[in-house]
Amino acid sequence: MGELFQARTVREARELLGEHIKATGLAEQVPLLKAMGRRLAQDLTAVDAVPGFDRSVVDGFAVRARDTFGATESLPAYLDVTGEVYMGQDAAATGVVGVGQAWRMPTGGMLPPGADAVVMVEYTEELDELTIGVTKPVAPGDNIVFAGEDIASGNGVLPRGHILRPQDLGLLAAVGLSEVPVLVPTKVGIISTGDELVETREQPGPGQVRDINSYALYGQAVAAGAQPCIYGIVQDDFDLLMDRLKQALSECDLVLLSGGSSVGTRDVAARALDTLGSPGVLFHGISIKPGKPTVGAVVEGKPVFGLPGHPVSAMVVFDLLVTPLLRHGFYVDDPLEFPVRACLTRNMHSASGREDYLRVRLYQENGTLIADPVLGKSGLISTMVRAGGLARIAAEKEGIEAGEYIEVKLF
Amino acid sequence: MGELFQARTVREARELLGEHIKATGLAEQVPLLKAMGRRLAQDLTAVDAVPGFDRSVVDGFAVRARDTFGATESLPAYLDVTGEVYMGQDAAATGVVGVGQAWRMPTGGMLPPGADAVVMVEYTEELDELTIGVTKPVAPGDNIVFAGEDIASGNGVLPRGHILRPQDLGLLAAVGLSEVPVLVPTKVGIISTGDELVETREQPGPGQVRDINSYALYGQAVAAGAQPCIYGIVQDDFDLLMDRLKQALSECDLVLLSGGSSVGTRDVAARALDTLGSPGVLFHGISIKPGKPTVGAVVEGKPVFGLPGHPVSAMVVFDLLVTPLLRHGFYVDDPLEFPVRACLTRNMHSASGREDYLRVRLYQENGTLIADPVLGKSGLISTMVRAGGLARIAAEKEGIEAGEYIEVKLF
Repeated sequence: MGELFQARTVREARELLGEHIKATGLAEQVPLLKAMGRRLAQDLTAVDAVPGFDRSVVDGFAVRARDTFGATESLPAYLDVTGEVYMGQDAAATGVVGVGQAWRMPTGGMLPPGADAVVMVEYTEELDELTIGVTKPVAPGDNIVFAGEDIASGNGVLPRGHILRPQDLGLLAAVGLSEVPVLVPTKVGIISTGDELVETREQPGPGQVRDINSYALYGQAVAAGAQPCIYGIVQDDFDLLMDRLKQALSECDLVLLSGGSSVGTRDVAARALDTLGSPGVLFHGISIKPGKPTVGAVVEGKPVFGLPGHPVSAMVVFDLLVTPLLRHGFYVDDPLEFPVRACLTRNMHSASGREDYLRVRLYQENGTLIADPVLGKSGLISTMVRAGGLARIAAEKEGIEAGEYIEVKLF
Repeated sequence: MGELFQARTVREARELLGEHIKATGLAEQVPLLKAMGRRLAQDLTAVDAVPGFDRSVVDGFAVRARDTFGATESLPAYLDVTGEVYMGQDAAATGVVGVGQAWRMPTGGMLPPGADAVVMVEYTEELDELTIGVTKPVAPGDNIVFAGEDIASGNGVLPRGHILRPQDLGLLAAVGLSEVPVLVPTKVGIISTGDELVETREQPGPGQVRDINSYALYGQAVAAGAQPCIYGIVQDDFDLLMDRLKQALSECDLVLLSGGSSVGTRDVAARALDTLGSPGVLFHGISIKPGKPTVGAVVEGKPVFGLPGHPVSAMVVFDLLVTPLLRHGFYVDDPLEFPVRACLTRNMHSASGREDYLRVRLYQENGTLIADPVLGKSGLISTMVRAGGLARIAAEKEGIEAGEYIEVKLF
């Protein structure tokens, strides 16, 4: 057996694929409100500072801080109220806060010239319309957000590749970007093979089953921000499969072939993937369970995966090898890939040198998060439906005992 | 101060709102491939069993198990090969596996009548075209998925309210549901108030800032599966605000009013919310930081929130009080609401009786997930952008020390 047929670790598989994949980097301009979950196509820079002026963060009085030094409840600092700031108005247009003076100030209002701090209304007493006593001193800068403190003008605000979250939309709105350049979603072609498969809307005859994988993989692609396209079911025939693969490759950025589970289907699929183009198949098999019979290929820079036929196996491999590509465009070490720790309910064996992935039900018991393995063959999609997450047993472990903690990715 | 003005805990606020909210429950039929992330409008039942027949999970030979009893490598059980099963074909149409006989069997093929187990090809030796030796016995049922083992006919497969994940699409495809009844997404109306606010595409003058909250809340609503609609910026004017609120309430299922941060704006908003209809405002203030100045109301069964003006505060409150409603239609105790545990880098004070929410940066160090608080005023949207998650300090705690673990929700 050549190197090609040696099962790879997930890390090795990612490295091999990563060396040959070329991301397209096609960009488009979209309205900010349509940009949720999209990836930025370029670094974005703030033209304007946010806020554009020194701004009060409390209701109170704009003052010169030194006029309040030494003020106490028993000996307040008395100031003349000589002005008022209104929301949204230019406080510089109406004068200056002089020595011994104070202006009324709403939260969010613009600090008037002369003032260098704001006294909270709670620390003032109103003697009459025109005079207040300040009962607690403020230092210069107190209760103020300075111009550019949120976002400095000319600074980079978000990097190329960043996946836009709600707060990012807020930030971009703040700097006036009502349209943003984002990467065009990855087009994912999905092909199912197997003589036993029929379409969802058909009634399976004896020996036939409906195609599950096309739908599950479509859902995973959508969840990862891609634009999937189903190329239907192909019989176990080399020429038919080649035609469909070529069509999908010409129209998509990434192609998934999800094998029927029989040896015949697998052989046809592997041959087809190897005939498509250069460099072709990079590995046969990854050392994980479930998901071992996975073929990884790259054709003219585009990744093509021959996924296992069993739905659970296909979904696990998608999560490990396809999702990162769709989300980031390449493989990254993500410390948050399996971010949840949960306590395992039973001993689970795992062969050393192989990563095991468990479907787990998750629930809380006495404040502890519990992971209870959903047992069952990897051909049963219902086991994935009953599970709330996927737990990983690292390759160097020979198993995990009941009561030990395990890393989990939530579905 | 009446009960209305007593700050509520998050739990109390949820209970109060929950008592008065009426979910619409409007349903629509959508193609399965368009149903990712949608909520089921009714319990779904499987008409067909999956698989519809007993199915091999290995490549090998279909046999009568008793014919293999006692077989060993040195003393194999010899069987006559009298047939072959083909993928997707009715194995019952071509005969019966008799005593002392075996049929060739692909993974996923239909078990022929007479056979009750499958021997893996690895445990057979082929003597000639018509004879095999079995070197390891099988028990009845070995290497078979039974008809209905994945999904039993007539069984409930997914309950009303379930949020569809990729594996659920696979399951529904398996039982032939190419269209599914889902709940119409919640329509969320978003209004921003404040005399200082201008639209994203406008250039703010002195004292003015662009509206951040409409965009951040829009993003959060999209992320929670809702259908948000922006009703723009309203000045601090009771009549204008009432008109806009009424319009949003008539067109939406839930309305968010995000206050400018000044006391004037808050007062106008609170008065407007209380005038809209019955039962009206349920609470002023929740005992959290940031997010305290939140008004919760229900008007004719529809929730209306007066959110704080500071973007961080508005987003935290949205996460706690609005997201669960949009996802589930009601408040549920979700053990996975803050599913990640991370080690805090510094002491953080928190007043007892108040839940504190920290923006945190997350990273891995020596295999430990670290949460490093992003400090900064809640008016600074950039602090949310720098954070990777939100951490919770429970109300009964007076703070958390460096090195302690804290519960985190990932952004």
